[in-house]
Amino acid sequence: MKSIVIHSAKDLRIEDRPVQELGAGQVEISVAAGGICGSDLHYYLDGGFGDVRLQEPMILGHEVSGYITRLGEGVTNLGIGQLVAVSPSRPCHDCTYCREAKYIQCLNMKFYGSAFPFPHTQGAFREVLVADATQCTAADRLTAGEAAMAEPLAVCLHAARRASGLLGKRVLVTGCGPIGLLCILVARRSGAAEIVATDLSDFTLRVARQNGADGTINVSRTPDRMDAYAAGKGYFDLLFECAGVPQALVGGIAALRPGGIVVQLGLGGDIRIPVQTMTAKELELRGSFRFHEEFVTAVELMQKGLVDVKPLITQTVELGDAESGFQLASDRNQSVKVQIAF
Amino acid sequence: MKSIVIHSAKDLRIEDRPVQELGAGQVEISVAAGGICGSDLHYYLDGGFGDVRLQEPMILGHEVSGYITRLGEGVTNLGIGQLVAVSPSRPCHDCTYCREAKYIQCLNMKFYGSAFPFPHTQGAFREVLVADATQCTAADRLTAGEAAMAEPLAVCLHAARRASGLLGKRVLVTGCGPIGLLCILVARRSGAAEIVATDLSDFTLRVARQNGADGTINVSRTPDRMDAYAAGKGYFDLLFECAGVPQALVGGIAALRPGGIVVQLGLGGDIRIPVQTMTAKELELRGSFRFHEEFVTAVELMQKGLVDVKPLITQTVELGDAESGFQLASDRNQSVKVQIAF
Amino acid sequence: MKSIVIHSAKDLRIEDRPVQELGAGQVEISVAAGGICGSDLHYYLDGGFGDVRLQEPMILGHEVSGYITRLGEGVTNLGIGQLVAVSPSRPCHDCTYCREAKYIQCLNMKFYGSAFPFPHTQGAFREVLVADATQCTAADRLTAGEAAMAEPLAVCLHAARRASGLLGKRVLVTGCGPIGLLCILVARRSGAAEIVATDLSDFTLRVARQNGADGTINVSRTPDRMDAYAAGKGYFDLLFECAGVPQALVGGIAALRPGGIVVQLGLGGDIRIPVQTMTAKELELRGSFRFHEEFVTAVELMQKGLVDVKPLITQTVELGDAESGFQLASDRNQSVKVQIAF
Amino acid sequence: MKSIVIHSAKDLRIEDRPVQELGAGQVEISVAAGGICGSDLHYYLDGGFGDVRLQEPMILGHEVSGYITRLGEGVTNLGIGQLVAVSPSRPCHDCTYCREAKYIQCLNMKFYGSAFPFPHTQGAFREVLVADATQCTAADRLTAGEAAMAEPLAVCLHAARRASGLLGKRVLVTGCGPIGLLCILVARRSGAAEIVATDLSDFTLRVARQNGADGTINVSRTPDRMDAYAAGKGYFDLLFECAGVPQALVGGIAALRPGGIVVQLGLGGDIRIPVQTMTAKELELRGSFRFHEEFVTAVELMQKGLVDVKPLITQTVELGDAESGFQLASDRNQSVKVQIAF
Repeated sequence: MKSIVIHSAKDLRIEDRPVQELGAGQVEISVAAGGICGSDLHYYLDGGFGDVRLQEPMILGHEVSGYITRLGEGVTNLGIGQLVAVSPSRPCHDCTYCREAKYIQCLNMKFYGSAFPFPHTQGAFREVLVADATQCTAADRLTAGEAAMAEPLAVCLHAARRASGLLGKRVLVTGCGPIGLLCILVARRSGAAEIVATDLSDFTLRVARQNGADGTINVSRTPDRMDAYAAGKGYFDLLFECAGVPQALVGGIAALRPGGIVVQLGLGGDIRIPVQTMTAKELELRGSFRFHEEFVTAVELMQKGLVDVKPLITQTVELGDAESGFQLASDRNQSVKVQIAF
Repeated sequence: MKSIVIHSAKDLRIEDRPVQELGAGQVEISVAAGGICGSDLHYYLDGGFGDVRLQEPMILGHEVSGYITRLGEGVTNLGIGQLVAVSPSRPCHDCTYCREAKYIQCLNMKFYGSAFPFPHTQGAFREVLVADATQCTAADRLTAGEAAMAEPLAVCLHAARRASGLLGKRVLVTGCGPIGLLCILVARRSGAAEIVATDLSDFTLRVARQNGADGTINVSRTPDRMDAYAAGKGYFDLLFECAGVPQALVGGIAALRPGGIVVQLGLGGDIRIPVQTMTAKELELRGSFRFHEEFVTAVELMQKGLVDVKPLITQTVELGDAESGFQLASDRNQSVKVQIAF
Repeated sequence: MKSIVIHSAKDLRIEDRPVQELGAGQVEISVAAGGICGSDLHYYLDGGFGDVRLQEPMILGHEVSGYITRLGEGVTNLGIGQLVAVSPSRPCHDCTYCREAKYIQCLNMKFYGSAFPFPHTQGAFREVLVADATQCTAADRLTAGEAAMAEPLAVCLHAARRASGLLGKRVLVTGCGPIGLLCILVARRSGAAEIVATDLSDFTLRVARQNGADGTINVSRTPDRMDAYAAGKGYFDLLFECAGVPQALVGGIAALRPGGIVVQLGLGGDIRIPVQTMTAKELELRGSFRFHEEFVTAVELMQKGLVDVKPLITQTVELGDAESGFQLASDRNQSVKVQIAF
Repeated sequence: MKSIVIHSAKDLRIEDRPVQELGAGQVEISVAAGGICGSDLHYYLDGGFGDVRLQEPMILGHEVSGYITRLGEGVTNLGIGQLVAVSPSRPCHDCTYCREAKYIQCLNMKFYGSAFPFPHTQGAFREVLVADATQCTAADRLTAGEAAMAEPLAVCLHAARRASGLLGKRVLVTGCGPIGLLCILVARRSGAAEIVATDLSDFTLRVARQNGADGTINVSRTPDRMDAYAAGKGYFDLLFECAGVPQALVGGIAALRPGGIVVQLGLGGDIRIPVQTMTAKELELRGSFRFHEEFVTAVELMQKGLVDVKPLITQTVELGDAESGFQLASDRNQSVKVQIAF
């Protein structure tokens, strides 16, 4: 079974690995589509991010879908041949935070393709994946590519929940990578009245406008266009900060009206923020990290045609061309979401 | 100037009234469309509802739009000929509740076409209306009929805000009159994952399915179909109760899962509720009444094509046929929203 | 080992039962104090309440504390001789609701002394109790009587959490049994600005005043004193409804100001409520049922002297006099909380 | 009439100023006590803070109480000789934010003793003050010193409201100046289960322990004591950040458990925060600024003995010794709140 293994920065190999054993309550999946995420890119380009560094070879990938090929003992809710979206999130269900249903904070989380723990948690970019049936959501009527978008869409649905209501709100989205663009789709579906998006790339801003943004600002070319929104005490009710860079967060804070909320998705590093403004305008900054029950919701909203992610899948490459896919995904002037067909 | 005046139950007259004087900060409007609301019908059919009874002739109507014909001194944000949606809500801005921005609860509210205070507050079903500019929202690009739907749509946007988030929720809507159907549109726009609607009329349930309901139940013909939703500890996260009758509220409570929320829009009278179920399942019942800032949002969402109310305007009659319009509006087997063209 | 067993209404017996086996993760407890609760009284006086009826003999009691006499395998956080408060709540940790950390709603809950399931869940009024270590909270520095109050105190802490903030609020408490009185203590500790309590008994109202109520109203003798609070659109921000009777809930609704919240603790049966008032004043009714993590908080607040429950323990009887204790507890003109000393 | 006027850094003078005219709806007050606040100190020590600089002489002071000496036309709710706490907050009641009842954000705010607007808003450190009756809260049964504490207490009550519930929470307070210490009093009154306070001064930490803190840490002498709280994913549910310095905020973020909330009161300047931690632990940072309706609540809680601020008034100096009062107030090793007796 072929899998996509990162050894160190820029050392990406397609390697044969044994198929995992199928246990009770599990299913064997012929992986169909796998989306390249920002963290996959960090491992590929830099060998990690922040303190998280590769210490051993690791199969990448956590945005996958596929067709069920075998059912483990006791699995009755899924069928052979069925397309499923596979959640990469595997909390332990036993630690303090799992007991509080804060699964995102599980102390023993095994999230596909993560070098945070050691040994690393191997990922899902492989031809054959064995997963718990509980990780799988039936994705009938979706394409494999759409089903593989359930993961990043779930991230943005979770962020929208962190926002305490979007109906009728004025929303700023900073950073129009896949997460920023999915936040636009989700904000629109959640009833936002006005959505403005910023980025440095005209390509992604065009995609933003085609997928629901009312207006876009290229902050590298026309940074002063943000000034109008900062006038008075600010304009937006809500900021989805998806860039993780100081200019985006600080500029967004200036553009928020009193009582406004920043939902921070971009991981960034340390950022110097204007605490006096946060205090005097009584703003809120709320971290948003991954997802849990939103994974199932993501599939359902796509199935009902309520969120259409297809325009964001800009390229699909064959497994043999995986590395070129990683290079494409690194270029935000020509791609949004690049997927690998297994 | 002609106006539609109710004298007592079934005594509806079209009468000439003088045009109001135009003051500073006001505009004169040639009324274009006026929607007949449930309370208008109550005055027409019964001479009032509950303790609110007609004590003098009253111009009906509070869902209107029109074209500006004259601008009072100091009005600069609107122009002659512009279509505006007119909010019927005129709080005093000075009482305890207005000081808390709870305008809906204003102690001196002057809401068009209401017999609650005496003298009654005269309504807006008249050829020429003088209104404060602050009541008017520019409705460019909408039809006059759509603009007149801003009022009931605002009621439902307010109800959605009372619901604390709809994204990914399972929603039950009981009662598919105009308010119930608009709740369906709003729930869908706010990201509800599943919407089931109930009513006694197949006609309105068909409109419900055509406008976003995933499923419908005619509770007069197949009441037992609700039983499936009451199994276990219930199914829905949220109930928009728009019927105001005991069966709807009590049946809905049974169908809510633990922690579920009833947003109560239907006014009803006293209703016997199963307090033990409310307590043991830790349900919440939240009243929702009218709207305030949601009026502007209603216009904006319609202008952006995010909520399409046109299919709900089932008939439009001429001013001269107003009474036949009231009769049509009383028949839920053939009409949803009936509007009068002035 | 002696235990207090109810066979049918008024048929209360002290019977010998075998001591339970001590398993891994469990502790054996020499029960020291047990409080008689309203549900115990219902079984004693009426053989049950609502649809919940005794179908077999059942050991009563769910408010107990005691001293550890033996430690099961693997228990390291507790010691022999230590006083513990024992939570009667034993969710399955495996059903849908437990997975959402809604333990209160567990589909397989085993709550001590409850005839809801069959076979009934036997209670804790026994000389020797074997419990899971996770049910036990160390209660050093408390009396056994105080420790046995952790359970009803936790009920009221949970209710306070359901209230969304008490700081500076005006609070009405209807019904001054133990739960109502503990709600007064909790409301005061949570920063309520004003607390008014109602009941039919001058005895309990005097206890209310001695334990934090700013004012009390005997609604049987001076019902019109509530009228002043209903004037205008009402006075209180919050109602803890602990009586479970129509007059209390309906009168409280009238006395709530717009946006006010009813936290419903009293189980009552079906109650006719003024839906139009709930809607027009945009009130909220929120059920509150039992508790979960608040049990530990209850012990901690007592240990720190932040809530003093001792004045509410009005009588303590010996195990041999249990029945006289039940009779005392039934008389709200002379008792609040009656405890049994084991 | 004597008043305390700041001309520039360290240039504090006691000057004669004319008594203001008494208008309708106003009262004349013989000021009794005035507390020196951090912003007063900034003007005295540095001539301002951040971008806010003295540009003309300004009467200082915004924490005052006094006895009414004259009543303007139409004032009926107050009486001659009555002690009142005077709120320094005077929103315009007419701007966008006032219309939303966000009075704290008033675009035309006239807050006593503020050099933010020009001409500066003159303060209340004067023998005779004319104020709107609506600014005054009757403070019968309090001392003048306590009544003058209503302002900073209101700041902390507002912060507690921003915290979404304190009952049973573990609370960290960083910075034990008057605001930090009042936050401790408020947290205790709001039902916090555990309160730990940090500062650089043993003097203020001793006051913290005497007024409700369960534990204190001198972060200059034993910074590593914070490490225990940062272990795992953190310990506290809530942080009242009152220091406005990077170490306090960053250290506090490390000590918060997932989902924890920072209520930011300390104004500070720009601070570099660990965005990745905020995101991954899904923390929230909420600015809290001044107060509005909490002023009345502050007086009420003191009157009922529910919050005792007296131990925080460490020194009172005569008007003639005002400058020595400012020097005392600058020394956090010997003073908490220094008041001036007029």
